[in-house]
Amino acid sequence: MSIIYDRVALIGLGLIAGSMSLAMRRAGLAGRIVGTARSAETREVAREIGLVDEVFETAAEAVKDADLVVLAVPVGAMGSVACEIGPHLKPGATVTDVGSVKRAVIRAVAPHIPKGVHFIPGHPLAGTEHSGPRSGFAELFDNRFCILLPPEDVDAGALADLRALWQGMGANVEEMDPDHHDLVLAVTSHAPHLIAYTMVGVADDLRRVTDKEVIKYSAAGFRDFTRIAASDPTMWRDVFLNNKDATLEILGRFTEELFALQRAIRTGDGDYLFEYFTRTRDIRRGIIEAGQDTEAPDFGRIGKK
Amino acid sequence: MSIIYDRVALIGLGLIAGSMSLAMRRAGLAGRIVGTARSAETREVAREIGLVDEVFETAAEAVKDADLVVLAVPVGAMGSVACEIGPHLKPGATVTDVGSVKRAVIRAVAPHIPKGVHFIPGHPLAGTEHSGPRSGFAELFDNRFCILLPPEDVDAGALADLRALWQGMGANVEEMDPDHHDLVLAVTSHAPHLIAYTMVGVADDLRRVTDKEVIKYSAAGFRDFTRIAASDPTMWRDVFLNNKDATLEILGRFTEELFALQRAIRTGDGDYLFEYFTRTRDIRRGIIEAGQDTEAPDFGRIGKK
Repeated sequence: MSIIYDRVALIGLGLIAGSMSLAMRRAGLAGRIVGTARSAETREVAREIGLVDEVFETAAEAVKDADLVVLAVPVGAMGSVACEIGPHLKPGATVTDVGSVKRAVIRAVAPHIPKGVHFIPGHPLAGTEHSGPRSGFAELFDNRFCILLPPEDVDAGALADLRALWQGMGANVEEMDPDHHDLVLAVTSHAPHLIAYTMVGVADDLRRVTDKEVIKYSAAGFRDFTRIAASDPTMWRDVFLNNKDATLEILGRFTEELFALQRAIRTGDGDYLFEYFTRTRDIRRGIIEAGQDTEAPDFGRIGKK
Repeated sequence: MSIIYDRVALIGLGLIAGSMSLAMRRAGLAGRIVGTARSAETREVAREIGLVDEVFETAAEAVKDADLVVLAVPVGAMGSVACEIGPHLKPGATVTDVGSVKRAVIRAVAPHIPKGVHFIPGHPLAGTEHSGPRSGFAELFDNRFCILLPPEDVDAGALADLRALWQGMGANVEEMDPDHHDLVLAVTSHAPHLIAYTMVGVADDLRRVTDKEVIKYSAAGFRDFTRIAASDPTMWRDVFLNNKDATLEILGRFTEELFALQRAIRTGDGDYLFEYFTRTRDIRRGIIEAGQDTEAPDFGRIGKK
């Protein structure tokens, strides 16, 4: 593959930005990759492991002369980062982000992007429960989706380049509008995360079952919840605060369904339970057929951290 | 290792019984392993793949002369199977089961066990989302826990043999009383399963997000829920109907916590969310330290189905 951007600036050097750097290098998509992070420790680790070609102290310095700027900070920090870099962006450059919610990010970032700079929001649907500059790996986006949310008046060339970048990093690119994105993600990601956090919290609180027992017997189903519930607290706090309406709507539906199932348990309605569980099993089969998971022993996770 | 039981009879030939047969063979723990299943199709598959040494048409025939009888049928079927085999059990034999709830199983099975036969309930904490005679594998119990629930007047020799069998199949054996077992499992397994079923059901029901989208973007957290929610519907129906009180208690606590988190989202209480998510992350670390999961790329699932 050939170079798409001469100079890429990554703002934030966590799991996603780090993996982008390694994936861009793997495919030779960028001439030079620079980056910055708010924490001095993160910058130091990134330098030590050579995560990017050059680490700057501030976002304003990092974006200078960059053809592509990637905002890879928690959703709640996007606005202030955009404000800081706005005046330093190169005319004709593209700015994108990797935030998990889109309406709120667009509202926070768009006002700071000067005329002549292309802002094309994005969201790669990929991640692990690990975070920080050491958690990235080049294969994170392979065969995963990256959703782009181009504005109506998007520059066709800028969009084509960003699509090519994500495809070059291994992702399948889809386009969506921000409202629909936030609803779909509330269902497939945000609500499941909050539910997993809740269940892990309940287990921790229960006085009659010791922590030791919960941990010891976790393989019985609980383990998958703890994996989800180990994700970065700052990132997830910001996701829920910034996708409030869609998340609360889905949680409302969830509570309704849960109450119906609880009632079936209480009244001994075995048919209701059996039919419900049979239906959910079919959804699993659909996911395996869609190639987003596998029947294989390792659940398709080999080579991933 | 040497033979512990000359003849073992497996009643039910699904994931657990099949894996037990393969694990006993791996370690040479049984002289002869026979089995039966209610469905003719299951019996035929078991014969075809040689899952056990001999397949009988009925449970009454299968248990004849058996030194160990393992009840590996759905929890709701335990009572009638015990009723059927009771008169055919060999004096001095041991009967155990692998049901996921224990109070209800003991209540259903114990009255049918004749004097001179040792009934020692059990529950191996191991499984996958697959079921049926082809789903078993010898490594299923390796480094997993098996809980035994011996009655107060248990025969010491019979208990020692059953412990040795499970250890020989790779498991770590623990003892517990039935009430506490049912509460611990409600937290670590039954409630998480019901919650996963519920979330998958919500996603399926939602009119404004297509099934195709849910499936396509499932890698964003939802995927782990669908794996849990693909488990055997009959088994899980019976679990909830037979561990009603403990499950409903935990779900009540879960709903309380979920409402508190929903309120924090609605009111924008970021500190509450951040602290909650930080606490749940620590629990995950405890599980990895306890050896019940791993940081490794495959999540410790290599070699498992």
